[in-house]
Amino acid sequence: MSQATMSGERTVHVPLDGGRDYDILIGRGILDEAGARVKALGGRAAAIVTDETVAGLYAQRVRTSLEAAGLRAGIVCVAPGEASKSYATFAQVCDGLLAEKIERNDLVVALGGGVVGDLAGFAAAVLRRGVRFVQAPTTLLAQVDSSVGGKTGINAPLGKNLIGAFHQPRLVLADTATLDTLSSREMRAGYAEVVKYGLINEAAFFEWCEAHWPGIFAGGPERDEAVAICCRAKAGVVVRDEREDGERALLNLGHTFAHALERLTGYESARLVHGEAVGIGLALAFRFSARLGLCPGQDAGRVANHLALAGLPTRLQAVPGGCGDAEALLDAMAQDKKVRDGRLTFILAHGIGRSFIAPGIEAADVRAFLEDELAAG
Amino acid sequence: MSQATMSGERTVHVPLDGGRDYDILIGRGILDEAGARVKALGGRAAAIVTDETVAGLYAQRVRTSLEAAGLRAGIVCVAPGEASKSYATFAQVCDGLLAEKIERNDLVVALGGGVVGDLAGFAAAVLRRGVRFVQAPTTLLAQVDSSVGGKTGINAPLGKNLIGAFHQPRLVLADTATLDTLSSREMRAGYAEVVKYGLINEAAFFEWCEAHWPGIFAGGPERDEAVAICCRAKAGVVVRDEREDGERALLNLGHTFAHALERLTGYESARLVHGEAVGIGLALAFRFSARLGLCPGQDAGRVANHLALAGLPTRLQAVPGGCGDAEALLDAMAQDKKVRDGRLTFILAHGIGRSFIAPGIEAADVRAFLEDELAAG
Repeated sequence: MSQATMSGERTVHVPLDGGRDYDILIGRGILDEAGARVKALGGRAAAIVTDETVAGLYAQRVRTSLEAAGLRAGIVCVAPGEASKSYATFAQVCDGLLAEKIERNDLVVALGGGVVGDLAGFAAAVLRRGVRFVQAPTTLLAQVDSSVGGKTGINAPLGKNLIGAFHQPRLVLADTATLDTLSSREMRAGYAEVVKYGLINEAAFFEWCEAHWPGIFAGGPERDEAVAICCRAKAGVVVRDEREDGERALLNLGHTFAHALERLTGYESARLVHGEAVGIGLALAFRFSARLGLCPGQDAGRVANHLALAGLPTRLQAVPGGCGDAEALLDAMAQDKKVRDGRLTFILAHGIGRSFIAPGIEAADVRAFLEDELAAG
Repeated sequence: MSQATMSGERTVHVPLDGGRDYDILIGRGILDEAGARVKALGGRAAAIVTDETVAGLYAQRVRTSLEAAGLRAGIVCVAPGEASKSYATFAQVCDGLLAEKIERNDLVVALGGGVVGDLAGFAAAVLRRGVRFVQAPTTLLAQVDSSVGGKTGINAPLGKNLIGAFHQPRLVLADTATLDTLSSREMRAGYAEVVKYGLINEAAFFEWCEAHWPGIFAGGPERDEAVAICCRAKAGVVVRDEREDGERALLNLGHTFAHALERLTGYESARLVHGEAVGIGLALAFRFSARLGLCPGQDAGRVANHLALAGLPTRLQAVPGGCGDAEALLDAMAQDKKVRDGRLTFILAHGIGRSFIAPGIEAADVRAFLEDELAAG
């Protein structure tokens, strides 16, 4: 990862090859620049894809900005929530974009959280065999994670994100003022992904988070700074390993546990949202690393303490309604990834900022760890 | 186009960059090689996507071949016909492939005509953000046209092929013996696309067709030869202009008229199949070129004569149930492509084998031509 600076830099460039490089613009109020920025990309029309919640807050403002720049602009609106990452809503969005007469040189603007970004990005990837799109993420999670890197897609009945495309945006507009309308629960959930970047390979950023996290939540300059640092970190990983043949897997730190918890809670956001599951997953990844003698127990404690301070869950017992026993958790993990000869691949850590890909972890070790975690009550 | 040879060469290599080059294998009975050939591509499993008609004829044979090569093999079967290029059938195929546990390194085998190839290719393009696929075309149309070049997709209510991806196959297995089970109507329809390659830029191949077409229909060595020549021609175009920014548009010779006719007959295959519409479209493109003084009338006559000899329609009056008046045809064409200031882009010809992209054709000239064609009775 390139050294993250703590400077005032608010543009992150993603230098992908083949003319696919793009900028991530971060700042309060930049949604109002949408028109000028999208116009600069060429094309004569743009369609905003959003959900009913975000539409009421920001869609008209973005549309006005697009029209003021001389673009024909329309809005395609879907129901909020993970259930919209379905085949049916995908068809609805595609047909909506066609009804808005989006041609090969026009643009799709994904305005919303991760669901909207994944869904609209996938529709753009396959509309007329590919049109360009802009990410305008309005949640912290989307600003620091899902809007950057080109993974788009929908869920299938057999699993999440199983249908999709690698389709890089042409621009990301991360208006950090939109986070002011986010619930504190969604804000915390996004913050788990922020902390993750420090834990992966940037101990200094984790330390900075420990000192500055209230500013991120309050909307001070620390928020823009944190989003920029996370985007720069993710952009670096994506440029080096776009298709996740190697290093990009590090971004899954905490996610093997998190995905199992989400599966066992039926993806019910009332019980657990993704970022909360990641909070527990990060704490578990560090405690498991410590248990295996890979990581100082002190680091695992420090990680859990900071997550808890920010209001995130860090224990399996924190899952409302429970998460099943160790065997159920292990089964749920096995569905998420290949188990070969009783061994799994995890992202573990030698310490804060020192994560690594650990193939060959014994399922028996995972089971024993989970049993002890659950027994610890 | 590279010079087409009349030799016995039956492998056409498509030298795409980025490790995406692939072979087209042409010959009688090569479906039995499917197992060995697919196995050589790596992966542990393959799923055959096919339709109910083709399944009864060839699916079990291909499955047996795959299993004999040590691959886990399954079959995903859809209803035959253009209606299967829908969102609903796309979801059915994706879920079917997931149920067959097709992983990122496994393969999808599209066994059937153009509908199956387009549908299965698109599903492969987006399953787990992209798995590899093999085209095993079983119609003449698919062998000489749709199975080569990487265009995949489905139809939307607002138009054909509006949702899709460029996704190149890793291998094309064109078993020319499968054409023995094709209806003569489907055989003729595919033959219109064969003739098209000669008309585009290979006068010698058109002449060869005039002399050898009965052998293509009868299944002699001329059939393999013709398929190889067409694939080589298409491969050349695709390698030079994969995304249709220029030259690839020449492959649409006759297709502006054809698409309008298909639209006006409601895509009812009972009335008109694609290749029949192309037959009429090719004849019209040459007569229109002659009328504009671009092409000798003698060439236009020769084209129509040969198509008619092979049993293809060459006049608007041949459309069962009629095709509407000149205005309706012009409207239908305008829906297919952009009309700018009353001008359209056509593929026209200076003669047999001398086609070119003609932007700026006056709509009024097209209307007058169509009126005269219809009046000619």
